[in-house]
Amino acid sequence: MSNIRHALNTKREDDFAAWYQEVISAADMAEESGVRGCMVIKPWGYGIWERIQRLMDDRIKAAGVQNCYFPIFIPLKNFEREAEHVEGFAKEMAVVTHHRLISDGKGGLIPDPEAKLEEPLVVRPTSETIIGDAMARWVQSWRDLPLLTNQWANVVRWEMRTRMFLRTSEFLWQEGHTAHENREQALEETHRALEMYRACAEEDMALPVIAGEKPENERFPGAVETWSIEAMMQDGKALQAGTSHYLGTNFAHAAGITYQDREGTEQHCHTTSWGVSTRMIGGVIMTHGDDDGLRVPPRIAPHQVVILPMLRGKDEDEVVLEYCESLRAEIAAQQALGEPVRVLLDKKPGQAAAKRWDWVRKGAPVIMEVGPRDMNDNKVAMIRRDQLWNMDNGKANFAFTPRADAVAGLSALLEDIQNSLFNEAAERRDANITRGVTSLDEVAAFYDGSAKYPGWLEVQWSKPTGDALEKVVETLKGHKLNIRNVPRDAEPADGPCIFTGDPAVERILIAKAY
Amino acid sequence: MSNIRHALNTKREDDFAAWYQEVISAADMAEESGVRGCMVIKPWGYGIWERIQRLMDDRIKAAGVQNCYFPIFIPLKNFEREAEHVEGFAKEMAVVTHHRLISDGKGGLIPDPEAKLEEPLVVRPTSETIIGDAMARWVQSWRDLPLLTNQWANVVRWEMRTRMFLRTSEFLWQEGHTAHENREQALEETHRALEMYRACAEEDMALPVIAGEKPENERFPGAVETWSIEAMMQDGKALQAGTSHYLGTNFAHAAGITYQDREGTEQHCHTTSWGVSTRMIGGVIMTHGDDDGLRVPPRIAPHQVVILPMLRGKDEDEVVLEYCESLRAEIAAQQALGEPVRVLLDKKPGQAAAKRWDWVRKGAPVIMEVGPRDMNDNKVAMIRRDQLWNMDNGKANFAFTPRADAVAGLSALLEDIQNSLFNEAAERRDANITRGVTSLDEVAAFYDGSAKYPGWLEVQWSKPTGDALEKVVETLKGHKLNIRNVPRDAEPADGPCIFTGDPAVERILIAKAY
Repeated sequence: MSNIRHALNTKREDDFAAWYQEVISAADMAEESGVRGCMVIKPWGYGIWERIQRLMDDRIKAAGVQNCYFPIFIPLKNFEREAEHVEGFAKEMAVVTHHRLISDGKGGLIPDPEAKLEEPLVVRPTSETIIGDAMARWVQSWRDLPLLTNQWANVVRWEMRTRMFLRTSEFLWQEGHTAHENREQALEETHRALEMYRACAEEDMALPVIAGEKPENERFPGAVETWSIEAMMQDGKALQAGTSHYLGTNFAHAAGITYQDREGTEQHCHTTSWGVSTRMIGGVIMTHGDDDGLRVPPRIAPHQVVILPMLRGKDEDEVVLEYCESLRAEIAAQQALGEPVRVLLDKKPGQAAAKRWDWVRKGAPVIMEVGPRDMNDNKVAMIRRDQLWNMDNGKANFAFTPRADAVAGLSALLEDIQNSLFNEAAERRDANITRGVTSLDEVAAFYDGSAKYPGWLEVQWSKPTGDALEKVVETLKGHKLNIRNVPRDAEPADGPCIFTGDPAVERILIAKAY
Repeated sequence: MSNIRHALNTKREDDFAAWYQEVISAADMAEESGVRGCMVIKPWGYGIWERIQRLMDDRIKAAGVQNCYFPIFIPLKNFEREAEHVEGFAKEMAVVTHHRLISDGKGGLIPDPEAKLEEPLVVRPTSETIIGDAMARWVQSWRDLPLLTNQWANVVRWEMRTRMFLRTSEFLWQEGHTAHENREQALEETHRALEMYRACAEEDMALPVIAGEKPENERFPGAVETWSIEAMMQDGKALQAGTSHYLGTNFAHAAGITYQDREGTEQHCHTTSWGVSTRMIGGVIMTHGDDDGLRVPPRIAPHQVVILPMLRGKDEDEVVLEYCESLRAEIAAQQALGEPVRVLLDKKPGQAAAKRWDWVRKGAPVIMEVGPRDMNDNKVAMIRRDQLWNMDNGKANFAFTPRADAVAGLSALLEDIQNSLFNEAAERRDANITRGVTSLDEVAAFYDGSAKYPGWLEVQWSKPTGDALEKVVETLKGHKLNIRNVPRDAEPADGPCIFTGDPAVERILIAKAY
């Protein structure tokens, strides 16, 4: 159809996993660190995280939640007292056993046997148990409730197989932890956090998600209810992009978080926890990336507009640079999506075309090129990253726009790019959720068929529990599938359960997942 | 002189160390966590850190430095190859030796002997060696230089004696790491960072500091030059509030950070590193705190204005709250010190007087109380935290101000509080630097005399090195003193060295220190 050349070696349709790695490298977002399971997040990747953090933090603070910081080390006893939680987490964690190194006498270093800790410390995999200790100190009376805390932190879960952003031994996240008087209030907070995550995913990251409750086998260790938002990647797999847990009084019992109620009776608090992590950046890549690299939604783009001066090593360069600097200043004074426009004038040496492709691969929403001729015509050559190619002739879509129009139109343009990326993803997601499958055989046929990226199934079930659920889980596992969640906003059930044939009580999403 | 009652039990002049702990507790900034050497930073303390972070990060970004994130774990081999660095750091560090826990069969957990790491990992005490690995990958040619990176992170140095904010095993900081073509450029960056720290300390935190170079015995392990900013606490001790290091090619040799220069020759980079930490919050407390608690400079105050409605559990309460909410909104729309005013309407239950004293202890710069009568008069009762008491009559300084004037005057008021806190600290600091001491006996007499908080000495020396310096250091140590730095902006030397009697070459600051 066209002679479009793409900026990456691997196309999504050929090898999605290899394409993912190539985008990360081509957009210069992150790399392996040489330390097992840990990555280095580079400026463009970290800049996206800083944007996500800032927007999420604003939402967190607006809800009256206060940021704190808790220790990275958790004593073993904190895990020992919470049986179900430790069962889920105690397996793969980094354990600190010594507090000093000494020479091994052969030019190397070893842990000093004289400096062995009496009680080993665990590098936090999550902080319920240590924050529970603090809550037990802080909460005395119903007047101290609700207690709404959050921390931005690094956590470590020793992973055997890692993939950048999606699964690394160390990752960055926020974890909200709250304590309440009763079940109703704790559930209300669980849903508030879930809704905050939905809004942040959809409005800030342009990731359409489906919010719903996890089945009991997928609950967070120690939780009574676990809710998630699920996003569909371009290979049809699901990515859990955030979770919110109602913990009942389980952690309150383990840590002794009690309060005097309004009648003077000692009660255990109902607690919640909720978190999102750098994993979301993997979701942004696999949702918005194309065969030319990343496309970053304007709200979370470190630079929304990149100006590339076309320099030729001649005297005129200085005049072009001055012109570009005045353009930069003019754009920086504009507002888009409720904030000042983030614009970069990229003065680094190098050919404009090579630099253009760098920014295409990084996915800056708008690229503006200015050469001597454009300057004299008072025009800029604009590229809108989300509509890079002219599909009719296969050429890159340059729009030569009068400078004044380019500046005046930026606010609407960035808003349009933000919305277009969301709509594109939402349409693809909706087109790839299949309904109407009514038997396990059809499920198997659907996923084992010829479709390379078959997407999700929404099916009806009777919500089996215990052994019956375990059987369903095992069956799905045989096809590398699992239940993502019970969508909050799905239609009511109106047929038989595909697993048991009993009348269904709700709908569930089935998918392969990251 | 007056009947002033103070909000704390301990006065600074009676027991400065106990006063410090009491301020932290009374202002609800942080507390012991129960995990050895680690503290919990509570919302008011963390909010101050967030403000410092935001302002510092703006300065870091404005200098073209890009934020990244590097692994928390550092392999032993990284320390082994940098002999001088490991000598300084390898002693007290948290060492991860296992990646799994198992049951001990008695209801407890132990590190799984089957899951011992082949090579132990160190929890980063600082990141020169791991970032050096990345720099070695990233730098090929002079075109890649300068490489300017920074990370915000937690670090761990196993401390035997800890004190909240000042010395904790885990602390939060930023660490800048840069690579350059040559000594001149690296030194220029070392001084840029030092100057940034001076500006941030003085302009944002209202901490007057003296910038200067550390003597060789006080250098960062592996550094060629170490520069610091030193602040004087109210007990006359010095607090190192930030350091900037020129590392020469030491770390570049250890990690193999090389580049092809403009002539095509392979060269080692010259690197720098620079950092400030949550320790600065200790400096803010010990500089601006008084016998009523903390006083937070407006630029770093999480809330600059706190509105306290006087509620009496009557119908009128609702009207007062509405009035206060409209006042809050009006104030939030004001600008002060270049940003929107951060204002809190504190609706929590409780007596207005008790709540007032909470905010006095926390040190909110401006407190506004509004009762039904004030509302009807369209006035607010204002307290300026840095001038709490009327020294003539010993009563709290309430200013009953027409609402419109209070709002219109806020910008100037907050700026004045910011400047007053700085000036007060600078005057005290200047009054407590003694010059003209010309012998070691006088030094001893100065510190062993009757003055409880004797302050600093600025003396002249001949800059001895090696053993001669070691002897000076030992002598000073006998009086619990050390050399803080060689002030960048001091007068030239014009007399004999107080240690050797030789002609002095420069002036140094001597002090007790945190």
